[in-house]
Order: sequence, then structure tokens, then C-alpha cells
Amino acid sequence: MKERRVELYDTTLRDGAQMEGISFSLEDKLKITEKLDEFGIHYIEGGWPGSNPKDIEYFKAVKDLSLENAQIAAFGSTRRPRLRPEEDPNLNALVDSEAPIATIFGKSWDLHVTDALKTTLENNLQMIADSIEYLREHGMKVFYDAEHFFDGYRANSDYAMETIKTAEEAGAERIVLADTNGGSLPSFIKQVVERVREEIKVPLGIHAHNDSELAVANSLMAFEAGVVQIQGTINGYGERCGNANLISIIPALELKYGVEVVGKEKLRKLKELAHFVAELANMEIPRNQPYVGDSAFAHKGGVHVSAVLKNPRTYEHIDPELVGNRRKVVVSELSGKSNLIYKAKELGIDLDEKDPHLQEIVNKIKELEFLGYHFEAAEASLELLIEKIKGRYKPFFELERARVISEILPGQPPISEATVVVKVDSKRVHTAAEGNGPVNALDLALRKALTEFYPELKEIKLVDYKVRVLGSEKGTAAKVRVLIQTSDGKKSWGTVGASTNIIEASLNAIIDSMEYWLMKECGKNEKRCGKEGN
Amino acid sequence: MKERRVELYDTTLRDGAQMEGISFSLEDKLKITEKLDEFGIHYIEGGWPGSNPKDIEYFKAVKDLSLENAQIAAFGSTRRPRLRPEEDPNLNALVDSEAPIATIFGKSWDLHVTDALKTTLENNLQMIADSIEYLREHGMKVFYDAEHFFDGYRANSDYAMETIKTAEEAGAERIVLADTNGGSLPSFIKQVVERVREEIKVPLGIHAHNDSELAVANSLMAFEAGVVQIQGTINGYGERCGNANLISIIPALELKYGVEVVGKEKLRKLKELAHFVAELANMEIPRNQPYVGDSAFAHKGGVHVSAVLKNPRTYEHIDPELVGNRRKVVVSELSGKSNLIYKAKELGIDLDEKDPHLQEIVNKIKELEFLGYHFEAAEASLELLIEKIKGRYKPFFELERARVISEILPGQPPISEATVVVKVDSKRVHTAAEGNGPVNALDLALRKALTEFYPELKEIKLVDYKVRVLGSEKGTAAKVRVLIQTSDGKKSWGTVGASTNIIEASLNAIIDSMEYWLMKECGKNEKRCGKEGN
Repeated sequence: MKERRVELYDTTLRDGAQMEGISFSLEDKLKITEKLDEFGIHYIEGGWPGSNPKDIEYFKAVKDLSLENAQIAAFGSTRRPRLRPEEDPNLNALVDSEAPIATIFGKSWDLHVTDALKTTLENNLQMIADSIEYLREHGMKVFYDAEHFFDGYRANSDYAMETIKTAEEAGAERIVLADTNGGSLPSFIKQVVERVREEIKVPLGIHAHNDSELAVANSLMAFEAGVVQIQGTINGYGERCGNANLISIIPALELKYGVEVVGKEKLRKLKELAHFVAELANMEIPRNQPYVGDSAFAHKGGVHVSAVLKNPRTYEHIDPELVGNRRKVVVSELSGKSNLIYKAKELGIDLDEKDPHLQEIVNKIKELEFLGYHFEAAEASLELLIEKIKGRYKPFFELERARVISEILPGQPPISEATVVVKVDSKRVHTAAEGNGPVNALDLALRKALTEFYPELKEIKLVDYKVRVLGSEKGTAAKVRVLIQTSDGKKSWGTVGASTNIIEASLNAIIDSMEYWLMKECGKNEKRCGKEGN
Repeated sequence: MKERRVELYDTTLRDGAQMEGISFSLEDKLKITEKLDEFGIHYIEGGWPGSNPKDIEYFKAVKDLSLENAQIAAFGSTRRPRLRPEEDPNLNALVDSEAPIATIFGKSWDLHVTDALKTTLENNLQMIADSIEYLREHGMKVFYDAEHFFDGYRANSDYAMETIKTAEEAGAERIVLADTNGGSLPSFIKQVVERVREEIKVPLGIHAHNDSELAVANSLMAFEAGVVQIQGTINGYGERCGNANLISIIPALELKYGVEVVGKEKLRKLKELAHFVAELANMEIPRNQPYVGDSAFAHKGGVHVSAVLKNPRTYEHIDPELVGNRRKVVVSELSGKSNLIYKAKELGIDLDEKDPHLQEIVNKIKELEFLGYHFEAAEASLELLIEKIKGRYKPFFELERARVISEILPGQPPISEATVVVKVDSKRVHTAAEGNGPVNALDLALRKALTEFYPELKEIKLVDYKVRVLGSEKGTAAKVRVLIQTSDGKKSWGTVGASTNIIEASLNAIIDSMEYWLMKECGKNEKRCGKEGN
């Protein structure tokens, strides 16, 4: 099957963001876009410009990214029943997005046309044709998303077929068959896709939902039946029970069907991609998530462990390293080292198996992970840690103490005030700042103190702050992990802190973010920027 | 397909218990057995008596339960390569269990026979035959579990077929084909089962694992190809990525294939069963779990909500009540009056379109949502808000002020101390507490002050605490939403607070959690519990 072409179409930023509890900032969306592109995703649906202002901002900002592989798609729907295309705000928002691709959904199910749209079956066909033609006249490629196609086909197959034939004739470049309610069975999906392929010549796509725990299977069955495009989201994020999980579909295509979709090299970053998006979505990857969960290749039973040590194929369906995961048995020191070396190479840090500090670094990372640290989205903290243990980091400052007071008087705005004492060489600065909340106050006070020594620090600012409560069954005494993203206007970097105390966790992440920037900008140990004292 | 017979075989107590983090007590196992029986499961695999003493106890105790439907199976393996059956401790443990059924696994994959068992292909066949015959001689029905059957078939189909023919000839009453590593694709499963059915007359079973996120699909494909028995676990618990999830398989069979397996009445207890087992397993049911998760039928997008209210079929693959779940209109979309009335009815609060406070409540919710509140997981806060505006809530206490101080001295444990002043009628209590972090300190101080008036509050405790940073591009000055789950040991309830100040957001959620409990337990305005002052 090696010659088969498959396109991956990711809708994490649109359909995925519909999931309860997920709310991506513009910054998050741009970062995820870059990561998906890097991984080799072919199409990235960035949002629905007609539905919210944040998405309009996204399409403006995304033009400044230099993407290697991916094309950006904007999502929307066919025109409203009683508007001409040029009057339709939704279609015009797509045009205004200036994205190269417009993915628009239309109705395939007669029930929806008459009950939800309250229009005629004939007018629906006209809406599909008009909308596609209008977008094409404005220079966009159009992917037509046939909403509820499988339910529509079950209810009235002739009409469902007519809708997609209309889309084909109007010039849609893909026809995506959607199992919008997620209720279809794999064999039905296969049978319907095969039937559609007899009549439609345009390349087909599949868009499956997971309401029956079948979205991955349904996508693969559609692939077997000949679709070219597979739509889904990272980790299956999405409304209700989620969308088809690309994180499980991609390795199945690569490793089980033997089709090249992103290539073996990029596939090794599958776990990293899954965890990166999870961090920004503020979700946890379940330990048992296929391919990328921490326990996906964990062997517990004695029989399994000894068999696996003799021959891993005995209890592993694939080699975990192919997807960047690792076998987890009782003793796994070695895999720790080789993963770290792999990661260090990626970050451009010299660290090989002969490095005298390697064991110490591995031990330190383990110790910190036990405390709740997590370096997936905090590579600046990881780099700093390695440099510190290798003795190549010379401290730029010393924090003597920090204190934050928050006071709440009902009916009045809360007050948060921080005081810090910072030392550089023999100079000591004691200062204070107020902020919106204790962490903001602390950040401001520390920055205020440090710019006395390093005025360059004025350029950097916190752009993102995330908090996760770990093992939250213990209530407010639970461990807290704080992830911070900082930017100097040119680049941004992530740092992490963890503690049972949110103030301490935040402070550690903030300090890392400043130390990292100083290390990068002011030289690892020779140069020194800033004034000497003041 | 109505005439098709399907047997459900549950292995939650054996394979499910292999999952990292699950450890059932004997008591748990017996309770789950009764629940599974009540639900209509046909076979319950209670344990592996040859592998651990707790399982031996289980088989003793289970004989005292009076089960309606289910038969109990004990799990084990074929005899060891160099022992006669009567010398094999594992086979004898099965006999000693006095379970009516023995399910034993044996090797189908030549690689395993030679590499793991270190014996000959011929001897493996002899082991299968001997073991089955020995158990049958001792009055047991034998189900033969062909471990790694699909991998074995891929590697050497002739030998794999020979192993199960041997089991059939030796008198096994079921031959269960296992995809032990969870790596097979649905179409392959179907094709192999069809092939096996041509040669094997004994009823077949399927035992799938979820390493490729395909276990439910693989079980259903095997069903389509003619297996009679489907093995799986509740919620898909199991080693690595888990087993086939019966909670998704059962409704697919009943509602999509139209086969009676437990019947429509019992199916309505599906959600209850899933949550019951989750409780005993000490696991959480993910909100997005198909069929039974709290968000499985949640509608958030405006288009979806209005369509669903017109006709639920438009965005629901099944009626949620068929599996004991319910439609959830997410409260953040509750800007409209009718949505709020619908929600109030769900919560058991009297609120109709003629209520004079309706508009005020709607406006307040909108205002709070703009500030970052979110009531979807905080129904107690919503109920409290409605009762307050309706004038039916009489304050139990007044917070005069709260202050938290966090101090960090590098190299020492951080200190967090809170002080609060609380008034009830004319009494004033001023107290302080230390905690693991500022929020914990605040929670403890407030609780300490209030229990002076309401000693009953000692019963309640925080069980979950979540923080989400909203619009986090603003860095640490971003808004923060805190969600708290509190329990009194019998029930639990969710409350919410939001602010740019995490301390204030947390305090509001904590106060709501206490007020809600006092309102529920101490009456809405008449009764008063607790001492009057102290």
C-alpha cells in the first residue's frame, strides 16, 4: 500500500477547542500551529472567523509565521438560506481571513434541511453550489464538509448523494464525509465510502466523532475504502466525546498500513506533540492513552516483564521508540539516559553518553518529576538545569527572600503586595510592588529589583501563565505545577516550577525565565551585561 | 439480527485489576460481582487463583452470593511444559476454586512457544489437550483463551489453527481469540474470525486490547464475523492501554445492531454501573467517555443547542436516557431564559417564566460569566446564586476580612499563613492558620473560624481543587477561575470563584462551598444549626 497518498487535516484549533474546559489563547493557537507544521500535518484548520473575534486575529497573525509544510484552512458554513453569497457575513469572513483554503460545511441530511435550516431541499443544494462558487471566485480552494453525511445517507441516500455531487460540480477540491454525531459503525462507514467513490471523482475525506468509541476505527475503515484526507484532532479533543484522535491514527497508518504520512523521523516526536498540545490545552494525557500515554508500554505482570525482556515483540504491538515513547519496566535507567541525550541534541546542547554529569542530570530530572515538574513545555528550564549541573552557568543574581501579602476586604478590590530582596555581587536591593494577585505582584517586584542591575530585562515579559493542580484529591494542599511562557518580542521560551505552594512554584518558574534569558543574551560565563551594580 | 445470541464475559476483576493504580479489595470484588450479575453480565471472571491468595479467598466467598444470571469463571493457564496436569499447581488451583468454569490461556504464536515457553510446538499442543481434559475430568466447563491468536495467525497461520483445533478436540466449550497485544486492525480481525469459523464448530469468543484505540471496533467486527462471546472490562480497565470497554460495546450491540444482550431496562443502568465500578476502582470517569461521561451528551455551541432543543436527533446519536445519561446544556450558553429554566428544573429548583426574579438571575449570570465564572461544573454555586436572588437564603456568617502571607526564603520550606475575621450575629472570631500554600492556609483558617459556630462543618472537606488561568496572554495579571469540589462523605458538590486575584477567586469558591452545605443541611431560612456563638 506504500503508494497510497494520505493527507492529515488537523482541527484541534477549531473542533478541538469546542471541548468543555479547553480555551486556547491566540498565543497558544500560534504555537500549536507551528508545532503541527513542524510535525508534518498537511492542513491546519485555524478557526471559524465568522464566529468569533479571536479567530479573526488568528488569521491575521498566522500569516507572519513561516510554515514549512502546512496550509492553513478557515472554517465556516454555506450561506444562510435567504442571503446571497456576497451578503453573507460568514462567507465574507472566510474571504477576509485570506487563508488559502476554506472548509465549509453544508447539510446532507434532509431532516436537518427541513427542521434545522427550515428551508427546502432544493434551496440547500443551491446554497452549497453558490457558496463554493463564491469562495472560489475569491481565489480560495474549497473543501466541502458534508455534515451528518452518514446519518443523511441512512435516512435518504439519494438526497445525501445529490448534495455532494452538487459540491463536486461547484468545484470543491475535497469532499469530506462527516460522521457528525459519531454514531456510525465501522463496516457501515466502509460500505458508504465505497459507494460514494463510485460516483464522486474528487478526492474524499473523513471526519469522525468518537461518541461510540469508534472514531479511530471509522477513520481507518474510510482510509481502507479510499479516502485521501483524514480529519481529526490531537488527543481526540472535541465536543461531547471528542473527534478522531490523530495521535492514534498517524502511527496506525505509518506502522500498520505502511503508508508514509509524516515519515519515520517525525513519528518519533508523536509523544512530544501529544504532550505539548495537552499542556497548552491544560489537559492531562491519560496514562493509558494508546501510543503516547506514560503507561502505554508499561509492563506490570511478572510473566509479561520477563517475556518482554527476552523479546519485546511478545507483549508490544510496536516498538515504543517509534512514537517517542518508552517501555516502562521496573528498571529503566538506560532508556532515561538515551532519551535525554536525544533531547539535548535537539536543544543544541553537547551531552553524550560519556559525559561525566549525565547520571547526575538524569537523577535530578527524576527527582524533579517526582515533585511535579514536567519539562515537555518547559525546555528553557531543562536547558538551564543541564547547564547548571555541567557547571557552565554562573548565577546572575541571588534571591535572598520574597514575601507576598494578599488582603481581602469584602466589597473592596483585593490587594496583593510583594517584597523581594535581591543581591548581585555585594549590592543588595530591597523593593516592593503591587499586582493583580500575588503572583503578578511577585513577578513585578522581582523584575523591578533586577532591572536595577540588568536594564535589558525590561524587554522581556510574561506572555502566558498556566497552573495545574496535581493529584488534586488532596484539596488545596495538593501539588501545583506552574508553566510560564516569556517573550522578548523576538522569541519566547517556557519554564516550569512545582511545589505544594503556588507562590513558590510560580517564583521558581519566573526565576528560571529570567535566568534563561540572561544566560542566552549575556553569555554563559564570559560576558556580563547590565551595569555593575548601579 | 435479532436472533443472534451474544454472551458478555467480564474480566474487570482479573484483567482490569492489572491496570496501574487499581487495587480491589476482596470486599470490592464481591460488590462488583453482584453489580455485574444484576446488570445481566453472563460470565464473571473473578480472578486467577493460581497467582494470588486474595483470589483464592474470592472464590471461597463468591459461593455465598446468590447470583441471578452470572456464572463465575476462574482464570489460569495450560500446564507447564514439564509437568503432568495432576502435578501442576496452577491447574489444581483452578479445580480447588470450585468455580463452574475454567478459562485457561495457551499459546497460539510459535514465537512464544519457542522463545517464552522454551518448548516444542508439538509439546505445546499436548499441553493444551492435557490441561483441558484434566479440568473437564474434574467437572469444569473449559473456555480456551487462545493468547496472541491474531499475531500468531499472522506469523504462522497453520500452527495457530492447529492449537485451537486441539482445544476443540479436547472439549473446550468456547474458543476465545485474543488480540493480546492490541495491535490488530478491525478488517484483519474480521477476516481471521471468518476464516476460523470455517474450521471450528465450537462457539467463538473475542478478547481485545486497546493499544491501538481499536478494542471496541475489533470486538464489534468479531461479532459481525460471528463470535458468540465478547470479553471485556467495565470502562476498559486493563493493563497498558486497557481492555475492550464493555460500557461502549453493550449499547452498540443493543442500540445499533439491535441484539438483545442485557435488555433495554437494564441498559438504563449503564451509567450507574460504569460509575459504581469507577468508584471502587478509585478512578475518575472522564467527562468525555462515550455513552456514560458527564459530557457525552453536552451541547455547547449555539447552533447545536438550538437544533438539539428543536430535535435531539440532530446532534445525538442515541437518546441519552437509554443508557441512563442525560442531555446537558452547558450553562455557559445559558444566557437565555429558557435555557436557565431547563437547567433549574434539572437541579430541582422552582423557577418558571413567570418568576419575578428571572431577569435579574439571568443578568447576574451574564455578569459573572464575563468576570470569568463558569457554572458547568459548579452547580452548587448556581443554585446558591438563584436562592440568594430569590431572597430565600439567609446568611449564616459574614467574612469581615482575610489576609494571607507567603514567605519564601531560598533553601527553606515556604511558609503560608492566613488570618481571617468572621462574624455571626454579634460574635466576632479572629483566627489564623498555616497551610501548604496560601489557598490551603486560607481554607484552614476559615474552617477553623466557622467551626466555632457550626461544628457540623467539620464533616465537610475539600476533595478537589482546580485552577484555570483565563485569557492567559496577559501573564500573571490574567483572570483566574477556581473550581472546588467539596464532600461531606455522602455527597459532593462543585463551586466556583473567579478574579484576577487567585486568593480572592479561591476564597469565593470556598465560601460558596460552605454556604451551600449550610443552606442544604440547616434549612433555607427557618432552622439554624450549630451553637449560637460559643
